[in-house]
Amino acid sequence: MRVLSKDIARAAREKPSEEVEVFGWVHRIRDMGGITFIVVRDRSGVVQLVLENKPDVTLESVISAKGKPALNEKAPGNAELHVTELTCLSRADQELPYQVNGDISKTGIEATLDNRILSVRNPRIQAVFHIQSTIIEAFAAYLRSQDFTEIKTSKIVGSGTEGGTELFKIDYFDRKVYLAQSPQFYKEVMVASGMERVFEVAPAYRAEKHDTPRHLNEYVSMDVEMGFIESEKDLIELEKGLLSHIFEEVASKNTVDLKLWDAVVPSTDSIAKSPIIGYEEAVKIASIESAKTGGARVFDVTPEAERYLCEWSTCEYGSDLVFVNEFPRRYRPFYTYPLDASRTMSFDALFRGLEITTGGKRQHDYSAFLNVLPKFGLKAENFGNYLSLLKYGCPPHGGFAIGCERLTARILGITNVKEASLFPRDRKRVEP
Amino acid sequence: MRVLSKDIARAAREKPSEEVEVFGWVHRIRDMGGITFIVVRDRSGVVQLVLENKPDVTLESVISAKGKPALNEKAPGNAELHVTELTCLSRADQELPYQVNGDISKTGIEATLDNRILSVRNPRIQAVFHIQSTIIEAFAAYLRSQDFTEIKTSKIVGSGTEGGTELFKIDYFDRKVYLAQSPQFYKEVMVASGMERVFEVAPAYRAEKHDTPRHLNEYVSMDVEMGFIESEKDLIELEKGLLSHIFEEVASKNTVDLKLWDAVVPSTDSIAKSPIIGYEEAVKIASIESAKTGGARVFDVTPEAERYLCEWSTCEYGSDLVFVNEFPRRYRPFYTYPLDASRTMSFDALFRGLEITTGGKRQHDYSAFLNVLPKFGLKAENFGNYLSLLKYGCPPHGGFAIGCERLTARILGITNVKEASLFPRDRKRVEP
Repeated sequence: MRVLSKDIARAAREKPSEEVEVFGWVHRIRDMGGITFIVVRDRSGVVQLVLENKPDVTLESVISAKGKPALNEKAPGNAELHVTELTCLSRADQELPYQVNGDISKTGIEATLDNRILSVRNPRIQAVFHIQSTIIEAFAAYLRSQDFTEIKTSKIVGSGTEGGTELFKIDYFDRKVYLAQSPQFYKEVMVASGMERVFEVAPAYRAEKHDTPRHLNEYVSMDVEMGFIESEKDLIELEKGLLSHIFEEVASKNTVDLKLWDAVVPSTDSIAKSPIIGYEEAVKIASIESAKTGGARVFDVTPEAERYLCEWSTCEYGSDLVFVNEFPRRYRPFYTYPLDASRTMSFDALFRGLEITTGGKRQHDYSAFLNVLPKFGLKAENFGNYLSLLKYGCPPHGGFAIGCERLTARILGITNVKEASLFPRDRKRVEP
Repeated sequence: MRVLSKDIARAAREKPSEEVEVFGWVHRIRDMGGITFIVVRDRSGVVQLVLENKPDVTLESVISAKGKPALNEKAPGNAELHVTELTCLSRADQELPYQVNGDISKTGIEATLDNRILSVRNPRIQAVFHIQSTIIEAFAAYLRSQDFTEIKTSKIVGSGTEGGTELFKIDYFDRKVYLAQSPQFYKEVMVASGMERVFEVAPAYRAEKHDTPRHLNEYVSMDVEMGFIESEKDLIELEKGLLSHIFEEVASKNTVDLKLWDAVVPSTDSIAKSPIIGYEEAVKIASIESAKTGGARVFDVTPEAERYLCEWSTCEYGSDLVFVNEFPRRYRPFYTYPLDASRTMSFDALFRGLEITTGGKRQHDYSAFLNVLPKFGLKAENFGNYLSLLKYGCPPHGGFAIGCERLTARILGITNVKEASLFPRDRKRVEP
């Protein structure tokens, strides 16, 4: 009977005389002369095999091993398997292009991503994606508990709503269409349909040419949209609850994964204390923080300012999360709801130095929408679908999106967001 | 205080003298002379408003209404609201291009899809997507309970693994890439990484030109892949448990939605009794069934044969689900694991007359894989990534995918799968 590595200690305590079988990957081999230790990796962790002969296996080969479980304080998980029979199910090539059991802090990002098929076997790297799985699960579970419905919308769009310069073109039979930048329009349709509260977890695409540690050309967007809100502050409250739940779930389900990165998730208490500051004030605070370390004045919520604001929030409020709201109209899409002539009911969430969310209340009034288009140099005839959305009864609403890879990266202290994507896409990389 | 329509009866019983507020869409207006009834729709259902004056509102306008709740056996949900104040939050145009509160059985599919922004407001149509949300939730929940990890993989691929004739091309900076047909390769990588058991819910793309009631050019693929299996029968067992859980969840969470379609989900008992029949036998059975109604002999598991086989299964086994396995090698992708010289360890799941799943065990042996390529006219140099996957330790494994729209459609008895997609894409349709 197969026993997972995590259950060998229990088997050793409860039925030490019963043979069990372990399946997994050869993670490490130590030949001690008369005795050989093999550390085997399976989906639950690692277990040590003890063999009297040195078997003919290579690192990363898939094996099965029968034997009796025994307690051993010095072995990983405090137990080991005394092997009577070992079978090689799939022999790995002797020459591994990437050292799976090595110290990844000494490997460059390009080597890690080029060899993704092997690098993702490294327990520390794989931990990133165990955490990501929990993030997606917790995101959906929290929203469902708040009466949200999950939707799946098309990623192929006839035209770009937000401009069109940063869209990837697709040859679609005899015409050109685009990869969607966001499900913005579709989630608004579903709010206005009477579903009121919807969410979607799906890929989103940006044809941005620049290569930075914070950008991906394809990312997993965790989108939320909600009807009958007063202002962006309702959305900020929702996001606080949502992030708290995500952090609680990661803390409880990914203890081992977090430990591999020496990472700690923020407490629910600290998230509750996260400040909300207006854009103008945020720029001032960032400038003051910058000056403290001899830096230059800041004129916008730049990536640098995001770091200053988070440091300030951690120091002043004890929270790694800070919300900046009331962005100037010129920095936000045309459909953002105005607060006054110059400011909007919009916000960003900054977490541990990085923007992880953009959101806001949307314009739901048909004539106000028509009036604002010319100010952005846009023409009503290009917004037929949007106009239909607003023309037939649309409640006050708004929403936001959390970048899944960015959130994952900031939880673990990963500098380049590409490392938080299983198969990242950038200008040069479309493989593997 | 806002009260949802589903809670008005409770409010009327518990606190009849307390004013509450309802928010929603004007679903129906009945002017009875001195008195006006307005049925309002919100995310939880509908409630009847009673007004002494006829308010100036149009169908589909978004309103809020204050008043006292009262029990009324004749009203929907056995309660109504006696309105003291009504506010119009968003006025809908008098001329609706689609009758939201009408009988959709009299509307053609093109009109329904052209006017998706309005048609999805129809309670019967919206029910389809409430059920889809439950399907996705239950799919993920069941697999997590079986130790599966959720993954998100790229939909942009440098080349097509399965041929390349039915792929959409993307202009990706200065090169051509493709929209992924399936996450096949990536889920195999993650099984071989040591995760062992993975799933993904994501869009998949097929550039097929033909327009049929069973095809979409973009669909939601619910993918599963699992290590250490013996044969495709392990996968069939997994899918039986998975579908049973999905059906149980839909039955318990979507009672109202099912009722709108007069639909019943199969019982767990019936799913357990689903037969597994070999391809050759399936063709014979389909031919016999066909002959019974004067039809022609069947030479393959065609769409017609799928219907015969499901009727046969319902009649002989009391199950709407039937598995066909051991497909001939020529009908399956090159990486399918052979059962013998001519047959493969593969299967389809047919449900209520339609194939909803294709799956199988995959070839995990490096040299067997290399040997099979020429038989399919394929060259090893085009499979660099696949070779890396198999070269460095890959366990016996397999998987399958469930088409989310197809499953949804067959649960409800929807004939055209496009109606089970929120914003379907076909050769002619990329809007809205």
